[in-house]
Amino acid sequence: MEFLNVSERAAISPEIAVSTVIFSLRRAPGAADDTPPRLWIPLVRRTRQPYRGQWALPGGPLGAQQSLAAAAAENLRTTTGLVPRYLEQLYAFGGLDRSPARRVVSIVYWALVRGADSNDDGPDAGAPHSELIEDPNVAWFPVDSDEVRAQLAFDHVEIVEYALWRLRNKVTYGKVAHRLLGDRFTLAQVREVYEVVLGTRLDPANFRRQLLSSPGLAETGEHLHGVKHRPPKLYRFEDPVDTPPSPAAHGAATASLQEGSLT
Amino acid sequence: MEFLNVSERAAISPEIAVSTVIFSLRRAPGAADDTPPRLWIPLVRRTRQPYRGQWALPGGPLGAQQSLAAAAAENLRTTTGLVPRYLEQLYAFGGLDRSPARRVVSIVYWALVRGADSNDDGPDAGAPHSELIEDPNVAWFPVDSDEVRAQLAFDHVEIVEYALWRLRNKVTYGKVAHRLLGDRFTLAQVREVYEVVLGTRLDPANFRRQLLSSPGLAETGEHLHGVKHRPPKLYRFEDPVDTPPSPAAHGAATASLQEGSLT
Repeated sequence: MEFLNVSERAAISPEIAVSTVIFSLRRAPGAADDTPPRLWIPLVRRTRQPYRGQWALPGGPLGAQQSLAAAAAENLRTTTGLVPRYLEQLYAFGGLDRSPARRVVSIVYWALVRGADSNDDGPDAGAPHSELIEDPNVAWFPVDSDEVRAQLAFDHVEIVEYALWRLRNKVTYGKVAHRLLGDRFTLAQVREVYEVVLGTRLDPANFRRQLLSSPGLAETGEHLHGVKHRPPKLYRFEDPVDTPPSPAAHGAATASLQEGSLT
Repeated sequence: MEFLNVSERAAISPEIAVSTVIFSLRRAPGAADDTPPRLWIPLVRRTRQPYRGQWALPGGPLGAQQSLAAAAAENLRTTTGLVPRYLEQLYAFGGLDRSPARRVVSIVYWALVRGADSNDDGPDAGAPHSELIEDPNVAWFPVDSDEVRAQLAFDHVEIVEYALWRLRNKVTYGKVAHRLLGDRFTLAQVREVYEVVLGTRLDPANFRRQLLSSPGLAETGEHLHGVKHRPPKLYRFEDPVDTPPSPAAHGAATASLQEGSLT
């Protein structure tokens, strides 16, 4: 290194990028109401080499004046128009051969955003994701689709796999499932999240009993609209905890975010 | 950015460093055998500005041809002469004001190494930590000492706090406690690790019963040496699991390491 000048050193020193895996629960457009939803993620089509024309996770070089969390939030804003209900650092990927050009170390975040059919009336409630962003190079795909499984640029398929593992883990041990829903949800909707994320059927009565014993779960006094016979109760979490304890270091941390806190 | 030349851009683009928080369980030199051990970490005295003369976590700029995990292993080798029994990525710290000079994004790992008084006979068994490295700028400190709490360079005290939180979490939910011990340990030694890490007393009989029901715990058929009356049995874990599932991405991952795997 010592024989190189500044620009030569810059050329070989790794670049820092921030990318974000953004999960949402939704049904395919036009699908019947009783179709089980799937996990979807937004991807961005690359307009430059390498991997020009292929889909990749939303992300880009870290701005000189941008904290890591701000960069992740920017990924979200530009691809979904949404603020996350959950945003957490996932992992730093820094292998030597991740990019065919200059070496890139990617600090990856993962986020949960509410689905298109939540029971809330907020500004983004029920907005089909892609309609918020009119960009032909941004699109949503089921996480188990071919576009994700076989056609992602770089090592992004491995990153998505790791984010999925983290999501399953959090759903099993934490209370993040409801963050894929609106602020108000039925017990069956929460079970549906668990079933989709964990890829398994759960016994409704047993799940219902366990969920009802969760601290913080509260009835809203309201019922689901548009159901003719015995409309189910809507619940909410009084204290949306399970915040990942975040390092308090200067802006490095992100945590569980209330909607609107990034706007 | 577009009006800057390469070296100007390099000057403002963040630098990547890798640092490692290395925990070990030990007694102060010369302390009586019945003194409870404490958690210690090695620190490196800075020989350059900023923070010249202050102690900091072992670490440095990421080498151009160095994976993140290799950089973390190098931190360990140069400060402890040891290979870790556990090495995992902790968090990427990327706040704007972490360093008074050029912005640095630090990808931090955390590691567990065996204590100086383990029951094993391997090459590094029982080696008092600092004696392996003869460097006046490397020293070990109790993690709750003033040098750590009040005098660390940069935001390293916050990083240590976060690593401690992660360690407590892992000890509570996982099976990493024995990695602070040798391959063979008594049940009382495992309880001692829990007590030190969690900062609380545990009921011996209850703990013993719970630990004995852990899958993978096995008697070695040996007993602790140097105890006159009823020497306690030595145990080991047959399958040292609780490997953090690591992203499979090209060299980005580290995981639970068998001793020797980095040599």
